[in-house]
Amino acid sequence: MRKISQSTVRRLSLYLRFLEQSDAQGLTTISSDELARRGGTTSAQVRKDLSFFGSFGKRGLGYSVPALTARLRDILGLKRSYRVVLVGAGKIGGALVQYQGFRQRGFHVTAIYDRDAQKIGTRWNGLVVRDVKHLEADLKKEPTDIAIVVTPADSAQDVVDRLVRAGVKAILNFAPVQLAVPPDVVVKTVNMALELETLSYALANR
Amino acid sequence: MRKISQSTVRRLSLYLRFLEQSDAQGLTTISSDELARRGGTTSAQVRKDLSFFGSFGKRGLGYSVPALTARLRDILGLKRSYRVVLVGAGKIGGALVQYQGFRQRGFHVTAIYDRDAQKIGTRWNGLVVRDVKHLEADLKKEPTDIAIVVTPADSAQDVVDRLVRAGVKAILNFAPVQLAVPPDVVVKTVNMALELETLSYALANR
Repeated sequence: MRKISQSTVRRLSLYLRFLEQSDAQGLTTISSDELARRGGTTSAQVRKDLSFFGSFGKRGLGYSVPALTARLRDILGLKRSYRVVLVGAGKIGGALVQYQGFRQRGFHVTAIYDRDAQKIGTRWNGLVVRDVKHLEADLKKEPTDIAIVVTPADSAQDVVDRLVRAGVKAILNFAPVQLAVPPDVVVKTVNMALELETLSYALANR
Repeated sequence: MRKISQSTVRRLSLYLRFLEQSDAQGLTTISSDELARRGGTTSAQVRKDLSFFGSFGKRGLGYSVPALTARLRDILGLKRSYRVVLVGAGKIGGALVQYQGFRQRGFHVTAIYDRDAQKIGTRWNGLVVRDVKHLEADLKKEPTDIAIVVTPADSAQDVVDRLVRAGVKAILNFAPVQLAVPPDVVVKTVNMALELETLSYALANR
């Protein structure tokens, strides 16, 4: 498959959300204009994004909602479910564990780790917080697809190195630090301050 | 100023972080190669990104760390501080209020709102949670630059409509819904499930 950019992947996710809502409302076709509005882009961009993956639309008729939904779920790797471990039982971690959107899309948090003795053994949303020193041994018995790292900045790289050695190939990082990983591991960093800076930029350049 | 894309703004934020770290380490110049590594891009892209704003680099010498830092802070609107109100005193809201990264970059949370009588009046990181029904009256007396919306999906649009009518021009949205706003208002939506989907895409297309 042709390599597509992260911004294209994000738009595909947005199209998919809108298609699912449209399907729930009983709509069977959708235009590139409508998808464009949802994805914050142009209909030309929508057609270009989707043309990477073959021909879906019929001129004048738009896209078939069920066919395009199925194809996008396939492209985005959402036809299966994913095991997710969370490292760092802090406030952001707590919010994430309870986040319904994850489970709805097939992402299942199967274990939570921390190094704080006061947190280890406590229950979080039905899961018992485990001692992070057992991370490697646990991952050997129960491999995971994705790890979410919500540790303080100064311990994030060490945790990531351990996850990578244990075979984890995809990491969602909330620690405010850039992480070094081998080329076969994908890291996505969510940095709240960075999001605010896109707003300050917009305010400063009106 | 020439209009630049959101992905360029994000890279500028990453360059700035790296410049600040380099400055703290006593470095005075930096190459486009190093900035590229930090921004997850190529040195050609770095030169293109920075050329939007004038000429900074000297061939063979790289960029001046203090000069480029100051210029990027200026471009990103970070030479001033911003007032931020938070609507929704839930778990994600609680994590955000305590997030040091915001304050360090000049984003100050000045008020928190909720509609839950059990939360109104309680203290959150030195701030008393206010009744969201006072939102408009408060914003008249104390205008804000940015609002962070962390409400459930079904009340987010209503809250945003009220914020917009009260003159708020920049919104960071964590509710899992696309928001409609007038063209002069900028919204940035952070969707955790969407971030995970960029990982599932990567895992499915290795």
